[in-house]
Amino acid sequence: MKLMRVGPLGQEKPAILDKDGKVRDLSGHVADIGGAAISPEGLAKIAAIDPASLPEIAVDRIGACVAGTGKFICIGLNYSDHAAETGATVPPEPVIFMKATSAICGPNDDVLIPRGSEKTDWEVELGVVIGKTAKYVSEADAMDYVAGYCVSHDVSERAFQTERAGQWTKGKSCDTFGPIGPWLVTKDEIANPHDLKMWLSVNGKMMQDGSSKTMVYGVAHVVSYLSQFMSLHPGDVISTGTPPGVGLGMKPPQFLKAGDVVELGIEGLGTQKQTFKADA
Amino acid sequence: MKLMRVGPLGQEKPAILDKDGKVRDLSGHVADIGGAAISPEGLAKIAAIDPASLPEIAVDRIGACVAGTGKFICIGLNYSDHAAETGATVPPEPVIFMKATSAICGPNDDVLIPRGSEKTDWEVELGVVIGKTAKYVSEADAMDYVAGYCVSHDVSERAFQTERAGQWTKGKSCDTFGPIGPWLVTKDEIANPHDLKMWLSVNGKMMQDGSSKTMVYGVAHVVSYLSQFMSLHPGDVISTGTPPGVGLGMKPPQFLKAGDVVELGIEGLGTQKQTFKADA
Repeated sequence: MKLMRVGPLGQEKPAILDKDGKVRDLSGHVADIGGAAISPEGLAKIAAIDPASLPEIAVDRIGACVAGTGKFICIGLNYSDHAAETGATVPPEPVIFMKATSAICGPNDDVLIPRGSEKTDWEVELGVVIGKTAKYVSEADAMDYVAGYCVSHDVSERAFQTERAGQWTKGKSCDTFGPIGPWLVTKDEIANPHDLKMWLSVNGKMMQDGSSKTMVYGVAHVVSYLSQFMSLHPGDVISTGTPPGVGLGMKPPQFLKAGDVVELGIEGLGTQKQTFKADA
Repeated sequence: MKLMRVGPLGQEKPAILDKDGKVRDLSGHVADIGGAAISPEGLAKIAAIDPASLPEIAVDRIGACVAGTGKFICIGLNYSDHAAETGATVPPEPVIFMKATSAICGPNDDVLIPRGSEKTDWEVELGVVIGKTAKYVSEADAMDYVAGYCVSHDVSERAFQTERAGQWTKGKSCDTFGPIGPWLVTKDEIANPHDLKMWLSVNGKMMQDGSSKTMVYGVAHVVSYLSQFMSLHPGDVISTGTPPGVGLGMKPPQFLKAGDVVELGIEGLGTQKQTFKADA
């Protein structure tokens, strides 16, 4: 299933994309796409609904594909070829950092370049959405706790991230730096999350043209690993790292400016398109 | 005012401590201690209530002093004498990192030592609770966005924090690593947040005996600084760093083990007491 949230910011309604590409209103059945609705039981209930029985809904805006995200966790340097381009080596175990959940926005919302930014950069990433509370889970069982996947754009300010006194979260948490969606695609639709084409273009020029094949620590490993350090809860999102082609890795480095248009997508998970604007 | 939340985990009721030390039920007036209830207008409404008119409430458990925390942000190395004891220098601007909001617990709840931990450590900190959305605010205006203060115990696993492949959040986010409370003390009750005694003992032995006087980047500066990088929202908590005396700074270092009892407090903000237990 392709679940989504449509409507103005803060008033999104839960919806489902049917097989003919029509967006159907789920608000008569679930309060939102998040919490219990994306648990295994919740998803089974939605799966039992005939989409044709649901009213079609006009899509004025697509919101973030999941509501009530308590943690937005990122895995750093998780593609061997991206680590190389930034001058880093693949870490011996996953590097984790947090994006503020207040950075989350819809997949096509404008992205605000924060005041003082000169190094706003892009990163297409495979997002993993947790559906069930996970603590100390084994890698073998980890997929039982995953609801599905989404496109995640880990927008990053490189100077804030690495030149402003420590800890990456500072360059990852700006408002609108976390577009997720358009859809939460349930895991049954993705045969192999480690063989998905991933791409990102800036003003129509392809910058990232990779695949989740080169991901170092895979989805089950990452879910299991994180659950050793903290409980994961329904609606938590894990952004699993980016393939090569980010602005920081170019010679010379290239960063985003107001007016730039970024488009990105992952095979089977849909696309995003953002216009970058100077924050007022 | 001293606002608090009492009752079983997940079912806490909002309450207020009256001047005679009685805990009074606020649930007839506000849904919880968080969001709009801790805005300037919300606090003014609570202040207009005569506590004697509220029913007294039995205190079986004290919950975290604020609900709906979207971000739990910490300032690293923010006491000159603590930076020195850990072998670090005071950073040229605030170091920020995130604790997972899923780590938040009540001030007297048991703290779980995570599996595999050998370096669980303590840190008494002054917590700042945001009451109003703050973005790009000046230091002069920053206090308008602060609802009040609380005791925050920034429990830390030093090996997870610094020996396990980068980014401190890994050692800061374990379940129960974020006791906050007992009270959200509104800012009008604290004449000077930079002159408060702070202390922490382990099994009755005083380990941290400091003052917020040695805080490097003060409350208004930190709120203004953070708001340049991300919007702060009502209920967000900023833990502003710890004075010297943590286990990591001892010669030899000393860490917590199951059965240890930690007590801590800050002048005017109340005390916490936790028993440390091995996580099951």
